[in-house]
Amino acid sequence: MFPKNCWYVACTPDEFTNKPLGRQICGERIVFYRGTEGKVSAVEDFCPHRGAPLSLGYVEDGLLVCGYHGLKMGCDGSTAEMPGQRVNGFPCIRSYPVVERHGFVWVWTGESTLADPSKIPELEWANNPEWAYGGGLYHINCDYRLMIDNLMDLTHETYVHASSIGQKEIDEVPVHTTSEDDMVVTSRFMENVLAPPFWQAALRANHLADDVPVDRWQLCRFTPPSQVMIEVGVAHAGNGGYEADPKFKAGSIVVDFITPETETSIWYFWGMARNFRPEDEALTDQIREGQGQIFSEDLEMLERQQRNLLAYPDRNLLKLNIDTGGVKSRRILDRIIKEECQLIDSINI
Amino acid sequence: MFPKNCWYVACTPDEFTNKPLGRQICGERIVFYRGTEGKVSAVEDFCPHRGAPLSLGYVEDGLLVCGYHGLKMGCDGSTAEMPGQRVNGFPCIRSYPVVERHGFVWVWTGESTLADPSKIPELEWANNPEWAYGGGLYHINCDYRLMIDNLMDLTHETYVHASSIGQKEIDEVPVHTTSEDDMVVTSRFMENVLAPPFWQAALRANHLADDVPVDRWQLCRFTPPSQVMIEVGVAHAGNGGYEADPKFKAGSIVVDFITPETETSIWYFWGMARNFRPEDEALTDQIREGQGQIFSEDLEMLERQQRNLLAYPDRNLLKLNIDTGGVKSRRILDRIIKEECQLIDSINI
Amino acid sequence: MFPKNCWYVACTPDEFTNKPLGRQICGERIVFYRGTEGKVSAVEDFCPHRGAPLSLGYVEDGLLVCGYHGLKMGCDGSTAEMPGQRVNGFPCIRSYPVVERHGFVWVWTGESTLADPSKIPELEWANNPEWAYGGGLYHINCDYRLMIDNLMDLTHETYVHASSIGQKEIDEVPVHTTSEDDMVVTSRFMENVLAPPFWQAALRANHLADDVPVDRWQLCRFTPPSQVMIEVGVAHAGNGGYEADPKFKAGSIVVDFITPETETSIWYFWGMARNFRPEDEALTDQIREGQGQIFSEDLEMLERQQRNLLAYPDRNLLKLNIDTGGVKSRRILDRIIKEECQLIDSINI
Repeated sequence: MFPKNCWYVACTPDEFTNKPLGRQICGERIVFYRGTEGKVSAVEDFCPHRGAPLSLGYVEDGLLVCGYHGLKMGCDGSTAEMPGQRVNGFPCIRSYPVVERHGFVWVWTGESTLADPSKIPELEWANNPEWAYGGGLYHINCDYRLMIDNLMDLTHETYVHASSIGQKEIDEVPVHTTSEDDMVVTSRFMENVLAPPFWQAALRANHLADDVPVDRWQLCRFTPPSQVMIEVGVAHAGNGGYEADPKFKAGSIVVDFITPETETSIWYFWGMARNFRPEDEALTDQIREGQGQIFSEDLEMLERQQRNLLAYPDRNLLKLNIDTGGVKSRRILDRIIKEECQLIDSINI
Repeated sequence: MFPKNCWYVACTPDEFTNKPLGRQICGERIVFYRGTEGKVSAVEDFCPHRGAPLSLGYVEDGLLVCGYHGLKMGCDGSTAEMPGQRVNGFPCIRSYPVVERHGFVWVWTGESTLADPSKIPELEWANNPEWAYGGGLYHINCDYRLMIDNLMDLTHETYVHASSIGQKEIDEVPVHTTSEDDMVVTSRFMENVLAPPFWQAALRANHLADDVPVDRWQLCRFTPPSQVMIEVGVAHAGNGGYEADPKFKAGSIVVDFITPETETSIWYFWGMARNFRPEDEALTDQIREGQGQIFSEDLEMLERQQRNLLAYPDRNLLKLNIDTGGVKSRRILDRIIKEECQLIDSINI
Repeated sequence: MFPKNCWYVACTPDEFTNKPLGRQICGERIVFYRGTEGKVSAVEDFCPHRGAPLSLGYVEDGLLVCGYHGLKMGCDGSTAEMPGQRVNGFPCIRSYPVVERHGFVWVWTGESTLADPSKIPELEWANNPEWAYGGGLYHINCDYRLMIDNLMDLTHETYVHASSIGQKEIDEVPVHTTSEDDMVVTSRFMENVLAPPFWQAALRANHLADDVPVDRWQLCRFTPPSQVMIEVGVAHAGNGGYEADPKFKAGSIVVDFITPETETSIWYFWGMARNFRPEDEALTDQIREGQGQIFSEDLEMLERQQRNLLAYPDRNLLKLNIDTGGVKSRRILDRIIKEECQLIDSINI
């Protein structure tokens, strides 16, 4: 159960070149490639001739050539040409609205006519030279909502990421959850604590002492369908914390795009955007490596949790205060999915 | 859906010795071994004692000994003896008509009483010392008919085998398909073209110039249940092409026996028979290696095509002129399968 | 189909330390750990908070801490505490009666109130310093009853273990099967035979000649749910065989605890107990290695037999005299399973 009339991050542009990329998104088998004029295109990964996956082919003059018998597919899903054939009567395959923006490729998996590129979220860090971004991609066998839960309740850091970003105070300081329109915000502010290893390194990268008490903050912002942006950081204690002058703090945005592959698997695009030393590519690499290591610690937990839930489908889970962010996010998703069903019903009547 | 009242290539004699060979064919689990007087035998791979696979056993004095408790199975599917047991009342397992011929082991998977060894195809190249044969076996996860389609439409050579036997002219020259009785023939004749790398090598092996224009031919002959013999070759241009005197040409027969394992997997016996330098075993090995490499290029395409078709079971595929060979072959198979069903119905009435 | 109101060997104490052990037994996902006062505990491997497997957590002060969000589970399946939460209303998970005895951990997978530790079998060899024990664990994809059959009919030794403990006379000497209450005993006595390699080595370990005729015995004792203890040995011929004075013989007990994981997979705890040179740990290791090698020979046979039986579910297997031990054992199991069903029905009325 996922919304389909929305933009999902499908891939990053470096994942395909002359060789197209086949990827399943929201149950749809899609092939991504750079078509006419270098524009990113997305069509069904299914050749209308004999059903071969077009992703095994190649791109020639902006057309996607099937690697089996040479059918040339256009960006709109209609066959452009095929050696020795008249192609006018060939059935079309589905094409998907797709936009390259903010360093990602976004695909609209629902009703094409509703696709509005202005609904792609604004991401300041992606386009402002004062920011740097580094990230990666994990494939995880779990329902996308389990990852939303994970990111909207950071108490798990104390346990899953004990050696890097976890600390006892995350458990001790209460979390605060609010929602407005379709955004859910979970926030936690810890005062006068010791920075855990990851943040000590970040302080040093900012040329700040790493052995003095800090104020630490976490603001997790969910927006549908499945994006979670988390403002995180530390400031030398007593300088205003989250509101402190930049010279006292190290902060960043944890970026999470969670794209359903199937009902029980996801493409998880994770990364970190920072507005200090943006030109330092070695630092970007170092942070990416550290974050990749930390985020890999969630994989086994999420996959095993998923298997447990499939084995006990009737069991009710608890909804504690710490789970409020996930619960509210799921409620928004439920409403959107319900609206989509009604929309489909109204079209079909 | 495959015919069962017919001979399929099951294996080659080198695949079993004292150790029997277990292989599933047309959904039947069968064990092949050399029984009394060295005659190849085939029975169900299921010991009537406790269901152990007989293929884990061994052959002793022409009897297949179960490797679990020593039951000795006869070639007819009835137990010959068992230590300390009277075996008269033991239930029989099924035995399969099986014939060793042309360097292959042929099995009849349907009604035994209908098995007529004279229906095994004649293969001149297999028995004439002027011919040499080399081949191999691939296991592929696809419906056997996808492989028939593949072989009856060689336009795919241009795309799948671009670096060896593919060339632009295959796409450009129209294909001609005929059928007579149960044979379908797809032919293509290219005139005055450059030989692609594989055929340049074949010309050199025939002590012919490899850098002059050639006439090239392909004649694909399907016969049921799933045999495709392809006459292929090149001749120095202007000497009559397919009809040219042997001194101007290099040709061979691509041999394809496609044996269903299940509805969506096959044992694919491929090979090449040639009537030049038949005594040159190094050449046989070299051709086998080259062909094995080329034919392995089809595997991923066929398996991914199969997965696509399973994911979109209701989608109609195109039937273009190039597909006529496959379409006609499938029509013959449909008729045979229908006849088999009617035969079974008539027996059951 | 397995009895659930009984004790099964779940694991050995060395399989978990501070890190708990997750293991599925009789279809139940269970986590084993050392709880308060070092007592072995077992609860469902399912955190009542969000369904994470508790086996990914750790033990702290006798409580099992969930590795996701820190819920602390008590041995009785009720949550002891959780950071920042009142846990009184948390739903309980199931806890399992569990006993550490004889060097194994025993779990009761059925109705807890019926669990009676006195029903755990007495195992003299496990607690008497005159005995030594060594063993191991195999995971096998087969119905637990196929392993009972295997162990209650040792004619398979001649075929599966031909090079170590098999010998022709096993087939030749008739087997005798008796049953009393819920125990089935299959016995075979071979007189004046040559000792096979494994027993030659055992004779040498007992400082006895290994090249003289011996009397050999096998007494397989099944008791439900799935324990098979096999007395095996050889004595120099003519000294009374099984009843001979210890100075003429080498004997041991083959220990088999067969614990269902699912309907078609088992945890197979195998080992050997001996009452000669019990202090010789090198000998224990040597025997364990030899036995592990021999018992691994059964794995492929059992797994392939299982696959055959699943493929042919309607086929009746033979019940020969050599199968009587397995047949009688299954009859006892059928009765126990039926009684359990009636018990459940009577509770539900």
